[in-house]
Amino acid sequence: MCGIFAYMNYQVPRSRREILDILLQGLWRLEYRGYDSAGVGIDGSSNDGRSTRVIKQSGKVKALDEEVHKQQDMDLDAVLDVHVGIAHTRWATHGAPSPVNSHPQSSDKNNEFIVVHNGIATNYKDLRKFLESKDYKFESETDTETVAKLVKYVYDNRESDDMAFATLVERVTQQLDGAFALVFKSIHYPGEAVATRRGSPLLIAVKSDHKLTMDHVPIMYHFSGKDKRGCTTIPRTDNQPTFLFPEDQVAVEYFFASDASAVIEHTNKVIFLEDDDVAVVRDGRLSLHRIKRTVGDNPARAIQTLQMELQQIMKGNYGSFMQKEIFEQPESIVNTMRGRINFEENTVTLGGLKDHIKDIQRCRRLILVACGTSYHGGLATRQIIEELTELPVAVELASDFLDRKTPVYRDDVCFFVSQSGETADTLMALRYCKEHGALTVGLTNTVGSSISRGTDCGVHLNAGPEIGVASTKAYTSQVVALVMFALLMCDDSISMQPRRRQIIQGLKILPDLIKEVLGLDDEIRKLAAELYQQKSVLIMGRGYHYATCLEGALKIKEITYMHSEGILAGELKHGPLALVDGIMPVIMIIMRDQTYVKCQNALQQVVARQGRPIMICNRDDEETIKNAGRTIQVPRCVDCLQGILSIIPLQLLSFHLAVLRGYDVDCPRNLAKSVTVE
Amino acid sequence: MCGIFAYMNYQVPRSRREILDILLQGLWRLEYRGYDSAGVGIDGSSNDGRSTRVIKQSGKVKALDEEVHKQQDMDLDAVLDVHVGIAHTRWATHGAPSPVNSHPQSSDKNNEFIVVHNGIATNYKDLRKFLESKDYKFESETDTETVAKLVKYVYDNRESDDMAFATLVERVTQQLDGAFALVFKSIHYPGEAVATRRGSPLLIAVKSDHKLTMDHVPIMYHFSGKDKRGCTTIPRTDNQPTFLFPEDQVAVEYFFASDASAVIEHTNKVIFLEDDDVAVVRDGRLSLHRIKRTVGDNPARAIQTLQMELQQIMKGNYGSFMQKEIFEQPESIVNTMRGRINFEENTVTLGGLKDHIKDIQRCRRLILVACGTSYHGGLATRQIIEELTELPVAVELASDFLDRKTPVYRDDVCFFVSQSGETADTLMALRYCKEHGALTVGLTNTVGSSISRGTDCGVHLNAGPEIGVASTKAYTSQVVALVMFALLMCDDSISMQPRRRQIIQGLKILPDLIKEVLGLDDEIRKLAAELYQQKSVLIMGRGYHYATCLEGALKIKEITYMHSEGILAGELKHGPLALVDGIMPVIMIIMRDQTYVKCQNALQQVVARQGRPIMICNRDDEETIKNAGRTIQVPRCVDCLQGILSIIPLQLLSFHLAVLRGYDVDCPRNLAKSVTVE
Repeated sequence: MCGIFAYMNYQVPRSRREILDILLQGLWRLEYRGYDSAGVGIDGSSNDGRSTRVIKQSGKVKALDEEVHKQQDMDLDAVLDVHVGIAHTRWATHGAPSPVNSHPQSSDKNNEFIVVHNGIATNYKDLRKFLESKDYKFESETDTETVAKLVKYVYDNRESDDMAFATLVERVTQQLDGAFALVFKSIHYPGEAVATRRGSPLLIAVKSDHKLTMDHVPIMYHFSGKDKRGCTTIPRTDNQPTFLFPEDQVAVEYFFASDASAVIEHTNKVIFLEDDDVAVVRDGRLSLHRIKRTVGDNPARAIQTLQMELQQIMKGNYGSFMQKEIFEQPESIVNTMRGRINFEENTVTLGGLKDHIKDIQRCRRLILVACGTSYHGGLATRQIIEELTELPVAVELASDFLDRKTPVYRDDVCFFVSQSGETADTLMALRYCKEHGALTVGLTNTVGSSISRGTDCGVHLNAGPEIGVASTKAYTSQVVALVMFALLMCDDSISMQPRRRQIIQGLKILPDLIKEVLGLDDEIRKLAAELYQQKSVLIMGRGYHYATCLEGALKIKEITYMHSEGILAGELKHGPLALVDGIMPVIMIIMRDQTYVKCQNALQQVVARQGRPIMICNRDDEETIKNAGRTIQVPRCVDCLQGILSIIPLQLLSFHLAVLRGYDVDCPRNLAKSVTVE
Repeated sequence: MCGIFAYMNYQVPRSRREILDILLQGLWRLEYRGYDSAGVGIDGSSNDGRSTRVIKQSGKVKALDEEVHKQQDMDLDAVLDVHVGIAHTRWATHGAPSPVNSHPQSSDKNNEFIVVHNGIATNYKDLRKFLESKDYKFESETDTETVAKLVKYVYDNRESDDMAFATLVERVTQQLDGAFALVFKSIHYPGEAVATRRGSPLLIAVKSDHKLTMDHVPIMYHFSGKDKRGCTTIPRTDNQPTFLFPEDQVAVEYFFASDASAVIEHTNKVIFLEDDDVAVVRDGRLSLHRIKRTVGDNPARAIQTLQMELQQIMKGNYGSFMQKEIFEQPESIVNTMRGRINFEENTVTLGGLKDHIKDIQRCRRLILVACGTSYHGGLATRQIIEELTELPVAVELASDFLDRKTPVYRDDVCFFVSQSGETADTLMALRYCKEHGALTVGLTNTVGSSISRGTDCGVHLNAGPEIGVASTKAYTSQVVALVMFALLMCDDSISMQPRRRQIIQGLKILPDLIKEVLGLDDEIRKLAAELYQQKSVLIMGRGYHYATCLEGALKIKEITYMHSEGILAGELKHGPLALVDGIMPVIMIIMRDQTYVKCQNALQQVVARQGRPIMICNRDDEETIKNAGRTIQVPRCVDCLQGILSIIPLQLLSFHLAVLRGYDVDCPRNLAKSVTVE
């Protein structure tokens, strides 16, 4: 949901203007995670870290930028050798978008402690009641303000004057329930920043001209023994801090960020924090702390080198990220298949599943858990996975799966599908399935994401960063990845070989077929021009295209705010047909597959009710084309891949509808890219 | 879909007026199955069965009634001792509602053969092409006209002059694919009627002052040996016909009808036809024929005595069947539980499952297959079945289940849920699961329905006939029946006993709680008055109330034609939240169960977007009531039954919305009660 960014320079002189520019640029990169309001917290006019200035504004980062430059009483040219700045772009969950509800949230009028937060502290009401009983005054409706006040409360009631900033933060997080990534700044600890996470993502990036002396950062543990639940913890390690640079006073810059796209323009050296890690930057030195050590803990965090390039997160020649990502699909599909399919030998290799594929083949049931578009990716491939594996396949919405406390067994294999790999409900479902002993498989588009790290094995989509809030290329890559998985599952079956060859050869020509569908862009824009003033639209289909209907309707909902709904054509007569008349816009998907005759029946029913559906059909389907008023004709492909060709016209349609209705397609109202809260 | 009715009087003198009244009355009873157009076929002015008169009209039966009485040249007072009349009320699937597309369909201008049909002959295009090549001229767009022409073609090309009417019909049905119930009348066979079925329901009722000499009708077989597929058939039985009355020329009346509600006012003696049975009434004698006998065939059809009373199918004091059925729910729930739950001992008995419950308890997976509202009944109970059985439970839409050719195994138990027991897709899924060796369980509201006869065992809802097209009391009875099943499954578990007691005691008070909810009727009518001009409405909830949202939205779709959609609250942030603003009407369900906190989060999100949701909540939930603008407060019940109390306000709301919008709630456009075609 929200985006966190912090920037610390140590012995690297920066003017206040440069610091603000770096913070705002970081927020701009993270804006896809939320854009209801934004804010920064930097040193105040004392220029020594003993005072803090907070600037916040409703709306997108641009509005904050303007607000920053309106400030009359700020010396933008003052140069600071050591500085900590924190910043935040918000997706509102508790409290409406407004300056007072924006981050950084503050402990008091003097900004003794300020904090930025991604996640939800679910027990904030109880904590707030407690703090109010101690006369702390609250201004906002946010859960985050409780965190800011609580750290001040711990500080005000500290046992000794030399209590470390990190210790304060540890005391605070021990009181918090829910999910969070937090970065703190305080006038009592000038030049020092403390960050921690649980459930929400956070990484640290390091930039220095000096050579790093290590490829990992060791964890410092505070105590050992039995923990609260009686689990044995391992004896403490040597608590002598080991730092990245052997010398003192090395010029260095650090960044904290919700994801790598915000830091990649500065450095490619990053450390991904784990749950309950506390990171401290003090005197230009980074250290990582944990309260206790448990069996199996990795006692260090690797410093990774990212290969992602900045241009990958730029829009290129397109008007929006979403449009760019729709048109990227011929390439993104190839990237998903690259090195994994041998089209001559008709074989599939998925390196990430190599060590577990035998166990997966022996399982009793496959469960695909996901939210939103990723859930549709599971639905779109359920049939082919069932066909090729001959296993029962359940596709579950993560939130419902958790609400139901669905029975899961040791002989189940559970897939977790999420573009970001950070979707909160999907991540919680992963933990639930691990507790029940199931084998877990991740399917994400983000290396190093919580899901890709938390699963036993997985498949990376390789679709490239997806910035548009409405997912497009990740969906088609999910479908391809799951089809590849199904192919891998039956590679030893002689009877399946003809079908496997048919699908693999279908995958081979798929990128070219996608290009042909993208060639319909003009035609679809004209169609959008006829439809964009409608209030509702129904999308009907069945078989492989039921998922297309749901996904197409979701795209239209997300970015055009039209009330669109995907309807299983087989259910028409059980209710939805009542909505059909001469006025309600209807889109029907009819492809030349095994459901063709049944789809024609559904079409007859709609036509008998004066419906005049727009047909998405095969180019060679003369019967449908002859009888239909309006068609979108796509090339024919093997049945289980045809859904990739039928969703693209709906992606394009939603895009053009949104543009015609005057909306910002990359920043739909009320939504954010990565949903890291339940 | 369509309703079929035929009336034959033999040595019972009836004026043409009386005959028409009986036919029209029968159609009126069946009108809930379709009301796009109606028609009758009776003897023409020769009064000897050597001519046929057909009268048809678009619209409801009332329009046909008026059309009949407009006929100037018909002698309504002529008394006929022997007569065959057939009638039909249509739900249009092939060809728009119009007189020419109405039934009876005719073989030619002279009405040599006329036929009424429920179902779809899927290969009618090929047959029509063949007949057109033989110079048969077609007038309508229906599949049924092909059947009428085909019987004439067989007659015109008969090998001998004495070929029986039944033989003609057998020749015709051997050429038909798809589903059908058919009744034929011909000027070449005066006083004779032939009926047959495959896939669509058909029953025969008998009325006579003479005592029936048998409690069954034996089947007459035409040949034996190997059939086309090489299956061994059993040697033919004695083909001497055995009749219901020993004497000749007994005064008797017969009725053919799609279901018992059309005949119960005349007689309670009925025979349910099986697939491919051919029934003939000739010289006042009924005989049943089959082409071949196969191992395991029952060589007779029982004559059953129906206990259903006519008043059960009357509206009583209510303005519509739907309203009556909503208000019947305190009683229908009791009827579903009657004799099955011992509230003192906290035990459950389901007689229909008695012989199979041990096998069901040993299964590996439960699959619930259904369409429309019945599917929601499965969703509403999935969680409690999972909890009490600790088995994986899949809930499947029948059409999608068939499209996917879902893997089904011998250790699966498959439930088929259908109010009518005739839903075509659910019935097809039943056949599919039987082929795969699964144990099958029926859950229907109609004794003698195809599903209740075709399953290994089952539970009858006992909710009483449901006439309103929008299902209400069948839904709540389905939920209760499935909860009872879950209770039965765990009756031997010691650890489950406290939970079982809690649920059983919840069931005990449920009828009284439903009465309390029905007491909100006035309040909900006022709410409807505020909402009825809206175009869209969203209904949000999660956990046990996800099914409520889907079912509530379906009710509103079905009878108000407003675009309503049920949304899983856990999915809000993955797209649907974009639809929320200050204008879109939103109904949210928040109950004091395990999802309460998460629902409150969803509420916060909606409120943060200016949404002003109408809350359906518990009466004792002060927090929600205090913060909400508008609430519908229902009493609290055990979590897994709370969904019965949350759906009723939405049933009432949909009813009042439809009335305010000026629609006929019992006859929504485009829909019919029982969907007996795919």
